[in-house]
Amino acid sequence: MQLGMIGLGRMGANLVRRLRQAGHECVVYDVNADAVAMLAAEGATPADSLEDFAAKLTTPRAAWVMVPAGLTGDTVFKLADLFESGDIIIDGGNSYYRDDIHRAKALSEKGIHYVDVGTSGGVFGLERGFCLMIGGEPDVVKHLEPLFATIAPGVDAAPRTPGRSGAPSQAELGYLHCGPVGAGHFVKMIHNGIEYGMMAAFAEGLGVLNNADIGRAAAAGHDAETAPLADPQYYQYDFDIPAITEVWRRGSVVASWLLDLTAVALVEDPELGSFGGRVSDSGEGRWTVLAAVEEGVPAHVLTASLYERFSSRGESLYADKILSAMRKQFGGHHEKPST
Amino acid sequence: MQLGMIGLGRMGANLVRRLRQAGHECVVYDVNADAVAMLAAEGATPADSLEDFAAKLTTPRAAWVMVPAGLTGDTVFKLADLFESGDIIIDGGNSYYRDDIHRAKALSEKGIHYVDVGTSGGVFGLERGFCLMIGGEPDVVKHLEPLFATIAPGVDAAPRTPGRSGAPSQAELGYLHCGPVGAGHFVKMIHNGIEYGMMAAFAEGLGVLNNADIGRAAAAGHDAETAPLADPQYYQYDFDIPAITEVWRRGSVVASWLLDLTAVALVEDPELGSFGGRVSDSGEGRWTVLAAVEEGVPAHVLTASLYERFSSRGESLYADKILSAMRKQFGGHHEKPST
Amino acid sequence: MQLGMIGLGRMGANLVRRLRQAGHECVVYDVNADAVAMLAAEGATPADSLEDFAAKLTTPRAAWVMVPAGLTGDTVFKLADLFESGDIIIDGGNSYYRDDIHRAKALSEKGIHYVDVGTSGGVFGLERGFCLMIGGEPDVVKHLEPLFATIAPGVDAAPRTPGRSGAPSQAELGYLHCGPVGAGHFVKMIHNGIEYGMMAAFAEGLGVLNNADIGRAAAAGHDAETAPLADPQYYQYDFDIPAITEVWRRGSVVASWLLDLTAVALVEDPELGSFGGRVSDSGEGRWTVLAAVEEGVPAHVLTASLYERFSSRGESLYADKILSAMRKQFGGHHEKPST
Amino acid sequence: MQLGMIGLGRMGANLVRRLRQAGHECVVYDVNADAVAMLAAEGATPADSLEDFAAKLTTPRAAWVMVPAGLTGDTVFKLADLFESGDIIIDGGNSYYRDDIHRAKALSEKGIHYVDVGTSGGVFGLERGFCLMIGGEPDVVKHLEPLFATIAPGVDAAPRTPGRSGAPSQAELGYLHCGPVGAGHFVKMIHNGIEYGMMAAFAEGLGVLNNADIGRAAAAGHDAETAPLADPQYYQYDFDIPAITEVWRRGSVVASWLLDLTAVALVEDPELGSFGGRVSDSGEGRWTVLAAVEEGVPAHVLTASLYERFSSRGESLYADKILSAMRKQFGGHHEKPST
Repeated sequence: MQLGMIGLGRMGANLVRRLRQAGHECVVYDVNADAVAMLAAEGATPADSLEDFAAKLTTPRAAWVMVPAGLTGDTVFKLADLFESGDIIIDGGNSYYRDDIHRAKALSEKGIHYVDVGTSGGVFGLERGFCLMIGGEPDVVKHLEPLFATIAPGVDAAPRTPGRSGAPSQAELGYLHCGPVGAGHFVKMIHNGIEYGMMAAFAEGLGVLNNADIGRAAAAGHDAETAPLADPQYYQYDFDIPAITEVWRRGSVVASWLLDLTAVALVEDPELGSFGGRVSDSGEGRWTVLAAVEEGVPAHVLTASLYERFSSRGESLYADKILSAMRKQFGGHHEKPST
Repeated sequence: MQLGMIGLGRMGANLVRRLRQAGHECVVYDVNADAVAMLAAEGATPADSLEDFAAKLTTPRAAWVMVPAGLTGDTVFKLADLFESGDIIIDGGNSYYRDDIHRAKALSEKGIHYVDVGTSGGVFGLERGFCLMIGGEPDVVKHLEPLFATIAPGVDAAPRTPGRSGAPSQAELGYLHCGPVGAGHFVKMIHNGIEYGMMAAFAEGLGVLNNADIGRAAAAGHDAETAPLADPQYYQYDFDIPAITEVWRRGSVVASWLLDLTAVALVEDPELGSFGGRVSDSGEGRWTVLAAVEEGVPAHVLTASLYERFSSRGESLYADKILSAMRKQFGGHHEKPST
Repeated sequence: MQLGMIGLGRMGANLVRRLRQAGHECVVYDVNADAVAMLAAEGATPADSLEDFAAKLTTPRAAWVMVPAGLTGDTVFKLADLFESGDIIIDGGNSYYRDDIHRAKALSEKGIHYVDVGTSGGVFGLERGFCLMIGGEPDVVKHLEPLFATIAPGVDAAPRTPGRSGAPSQAELGYLHCGPVGAGHFVKMIHNGIEYGMMAAFAEGLGVLNNADIGRAAAAGHDAETAPLADPQYYQYDFDIPAITEVWRRGSVVASWLLDLTAVALVEDPELGSFGGRVSDSGEGRWTVLAAVEEGVPAHVLTASLYERFSSRGESLYADKILSAMRKQFGGHHEKPST
Repeated sequence: MQLGMIGLGRMGANLVRRLRQAGHECVVYDVNADAVAMLAAEGATPADSLEDFAAKLTTPRAAWVMVPAGLTGDTVFKLADLFESGDIIIDGGNSYYRDDIHRAKALSEKGIHYVDVGTSGGVFGLERGFCLMIGGEPDVVKHLEPLFATIAPGVDAAPRTPGRSGAPSQAELGYLHCGPVGAGHFVKMIHNGIEYGMMAAFAEGLGVLNNADIGRAAAAGHDAETAPLADPQYYQYDFDIPAITEVWRRGSVVASWLLDLTAVALVEDPELGSFGGRVSDSGEGRWTVLAAVEEGVPAHVLTASLYERFSSRGESLYADKILSAMRKQFGGHHEKPST
């Protein structure tokens, strides 16, 4: 079937390619004309404006918006101005699910349907397929199902779960209609929250391995500020962390795609010298914490993993100065200089 | 080659089976004679006492101890009394790596070698192979390598990491000599610490999904103790969590063996009615935190995942009572009854 | 000067009493006629309806709303319907500062001024005075200053901070105009967030003291699920926690009003037998976390203290069941029964 | 009565002064002869060697050791060599309570008594008195009680707790015999753990206040890495944090000595420009976490406050690099440069 794609960055372009490989027709648009030209050269139908894009789509139109998070709302509403009752706008980006609810309500006044799709798979999705978490009206989602089934990895991407048999369910094919509007991005939000937590688990654990040679350091001088390491003999290990991440890939409980990627990264850059350690966060981790708080459900791990990213960017500096200021007041402690 | 196995529980028995399938000879012993008889029926050489066990092993002996954590030390030392210089004792259980250091030192006085092996793979190891993390003297570990290579999953258990080519390294075969005595259990300790963190990430995230229908609950009465949910319209989702864990298995960033297992568990018991939510912890998670603290490395996520297990068993009750007592004092707040 | 008070619960009634003791005139209203009658008996001017309340106030009217959080918005808007341009409505409850911004904007269309006041002091405020954090237009706040100065504790309530001299500042008198509308409740929100963190610090620390006799427990049986306590000789203390909280009150770094209250609570109920350990949370702790997340500032401690309250009410149960379900899958671990 | 003091740093010197003001006799020694001379000039009896120190003390000797943590053990054992059966050695420093247990056992073989005293009060102790937490044999502690009563602040240092009447208890006088050897430092350890948590609560809360103007920052460009701040209108506050800490000192629930000190620090240096934010930790915080873990008691807040100090010193760098490396692998995300 036909799909329009707005936003031809890494993800959008790969979605188009995956759809076209399966015989779907794609109309493509991007503010960057070069991106349009590249996909046109691969066989997609180019559009040179939103108007042109709308004109080249057959009604009922289906358009997938895949633009940076801050631009999604504007793009959706501009498109809605050009679309008609019965058309469908799909937000495949990393939108806040609450924005989905607001947008769907606004679009419904014109009879336009809104579908939110959380998309996971990163730069590997073209080859592996993308995991799709979908929210929207049941019949609209059903109408789009041929597209979702193409984009998703398919049942063979993983061994079937014992207890599941017969024709594979949607979920086993790699896409899932999760509920009404917003449900797709809600599930994607939690997915990313979990991703933050898993990443932090690996990062912290490897951090402890990395410091396991601390007992070899020359004994620090005795002062009232620092307790000497009681038992340096227990911290004499010089671990080969690239090898350790590799060995865990086979047979261990922590085997995972994130571990696979960590092993790749450590082959490419064993000392991680190309990284400064400033870790971005892009919305879903924050929204996951907001949801946990509003629901009254504890999420120590997911939240800590978010806060560690804040700290990595220096955002705890004021608090740390307050601590040093207090210590100076009650104990006369002066800060130890960095060594 | 020949290996003696002491402790024929789930793990020990499967190690023996995996070794024997590859043609190694196994002498087996357990305090439970039935366990010995079962493996003897499968072709292993039975021993009916530690003395008999020692006598049936060819020098230089190699014995693998796979008994509950609290019994490992006693077993190792009893065996050492029966062994001779040049023999090897392998601790394949979940020992604290510091105990390895102490034991190895004690055994070295008699010329007996000590090797510590962290073993991951759970109940699936017989089929998948076990991931082995090994500490000990280089030549001793090298001597045992045929056994380790058999027990480990082998290179085909996972796609090779891009950048790794030629003959597979130890790590790619699924076992790794991590360093001197204790190094194997140190790495296993961190592995389990990471496992705790990953498990908590999934558990917390699914917990937030599970409560996403909170906006449907009848509006709670207004009182000074509880803030009403500001926006119930955002919490109207009734998610199919078994399907969500299934869809994440294909193409998503959180794909992992732990996710696979969660999906299985949710097929078996979709409402988790067979669980009470009292979560055990068995040592490595605690030791990981101790190491982080002694090394001065932050481990928010790994620690929180451990503490959540403590809380699941009611261990925060006293602290919670203190909080209620304080609230009563300063605000006259009385505890709200459970509803 | 004159002030109207709506809401004569614990806090509202004590505010009226404190104002009247200093000679201010108070018009009082509550849906509970008994509460009105009680304060009328003490000399306040009673009102038997909102209309009566508005009528008895001299223009420009000043009315303080002190009702449960969930009712504040309605009360403010009903009152605004009866008030005129130039009148002032003060929200002294625990409102979300964002609601202040919305309400002030709505009221400004009618020329009515809105002032938000965060009030701390609990049940002791009548005697000690209340700490006031104020947001609103500068001249309006200035107009109300005689009331704030009366309600606040005054400079003598604490020794002056070294470096502050001359006429006491507002802050030293115990009230502070913190900024534009919402600023008062923002500062109160953070105040309560800090309060949660301090309370949790005490609760957790006392929890560790309380369990310091764990080494005396009969050694648990050896099994694969639980690591035995390595060094029971270090956990043989039977601490007198009421005495410990008392001794800390004099000369120690943790001396604080919360410690004083904890000491009182432990004199009243040394074993805390009257508490079940279900700890409420009333909004500010949650909003503090939301602010930290939106600002991108780490708040590990404040957030953990909130989540511990959630856990105390059983809200981690689903996550805990997930953990047990995972453990059963990979390790065949069955839950240990509660003992 | 007579007391010997070894270690005439800030704390040791002030203890001597406080004892002498009350008429006790003090023999003093320090490796720094100037420190000895200064206290001799104030009337203490100087010693120029440990031997001289031991000789000038009347049997049964009582000596208080107040040296840096790393030197305490050596000092205690050197002193024990010079002392006789019946003499008493008091460790008033910040020792690990387990070291107390070991030392007391070693000294008991010679008949020397060991008393551990946790001392809180910081640089203000000379004037305010020190809060003393004491472990040791009952009759030995009783023998030393005149010294403890002098050092402690006395009952008038705080209003009596309602419910306590009659002759003040030890705890009300500001010192407490907490239990057998090690009990004093155990309680001091937890005290400091709580102190860490309280400090972090203030630091984090003030950090959120400090960033409450984030909505004023020029809107960041739209990119896929960062979610734009959804509602900048809610973060327009420019708070006067010195004034806020001042106003909380009177009447609020967070009133505390740590708040008093924070207010002082912010008068001295309102922008905290003299601090770099590298926060030391000196042992007790770490030991508190170890105790929580070994006891199986959750301590989210106390642990997070410790880890934040580690992070303030850059100890999360490796973990943060791992996170960036993972993000690059799965998402092609490159680190954003510091701006």
